[in-house]
Amino acid sequence: MELEEKTLMAKQIFKGKIINVRVDDVILPDGRTATREIVEHSGAVAIIPLTYENNIIFVQQYRKPVEEEILEIPAGKLEEGENPFKCAERELKEETGYVADNINYITKFYSSPGFSNEVIHLFLARDIREVEVGGTPEPDEFLRIKKVHIKDAFEMVLAGEIKDGKTIIGVLIAEALLNKKD
Amino acid sequence: MELEEKTLMAKQIFKGKIINVRVDDVILPDGRTATREIVEHSGAVAIIPLTYENNIIFVQQYRKPVEEEILEIPAGKLEEGENPFKCAERELKEETGYVADNINYITKFYSSPGFSNEVIHLFLARDIREVEVGGTPEPDEFLRIKKVHIKDAFEMVLAGEIKDGKTIIGVLIAEALLNKKD
Repeated sequence: MELEEKTLMAKQIFKGKIINVRVDDVILPDGRTATREIVEHSGAVAIIPLTYENNIIFVQQYRKPVEEEILEIPAGKLEEGENPFKCAERELKEETGYVADNINYITKFYSSPGFSNEVIHLFLARDIREVEVGGTPEPDEFLRIKKVHIKDAFEMVLAGEIKDGKTIIGVLIAEALLNKKD
Repeated sequence: MELEEKTLMAKQIFKGKIINVRVDDVILPDGRTATREIVEHSGAVAIIPLTYENNIIFVQQYRKPVEEEILEIPAGKLEEGENPFKCAERELKEETGYVADNINYITKFYSSPGFSNEVIHLFLARDIREVEVGGTPEPDEFLRIKKVHIKDAFEMVLAGEIKDGKTIIGVLIAEALLNKKD
């Protein structure tokens, strides 16, 4: 059986700075119709910043949608047509003040494919070094930097102390990759 | 410095079946103002279904927002006020036809806290058994069931072959928990 849902009609609901919203009428595999509510996003990058001693540099940030401060790996929205690798280099430096000679592409994933097309490109930056204390965040970004050893970050994930999906993925993948090399 | 952003005004943009959208005017920590685009979601559960032989039962599903079929762990939207544990039991049976005597709560996380309040409650169902081949999905859900050993699923994550964020988290956490017990 073909699972694809063909679009009958797409209705634009909202055009914002970060997201657009539309509602699609679709044909289901059995021929009936349904509606799908879709949040369009231009994608993002996230970087696992690892020091030589395997400390991760996190940023603590207030997130209005969830009304709390949460610990995250540095990340940022891709502009239309922007190269994810360049975006990763820029966001790492802006948000943390650290730079890396080598940033490696790890994987990409959908944050919430049931209602959004947001894709997050994940990078690993090893042997990072601080060139500017605190970085230079955007005018509407207020961040606190926290340094945590990867072993402690891994335990924080298992204890439910890291609440951001991309950050959980970043910590677990970095830990798995480091273990593979040991 | 206090990082919280207080709401000056909230404007409702869209009320849908799965999501609502609003735009908040907020006061930033430095006293200036900004707008935040927010997708409201009632939350979801996701279940890592593990057989006695440590196979994971995945569901392959077409996701309209990303226009492709992707492999996911079973999951479902919470109704207002619904108990996540009951929802996990129901979704596991409906989507896969498997049931578990013991379902354990693992953690919860935000799928994309930059623009949405969606929280996903993650459960581990061990020693599951099939009671109904294929399950009984919702009328607008079309699924294919795939059984993959956890070691192979782990390698699929590292190879970038699993594209759904909650599924990557589920596989990596299950693998880490099983290793801890060894």
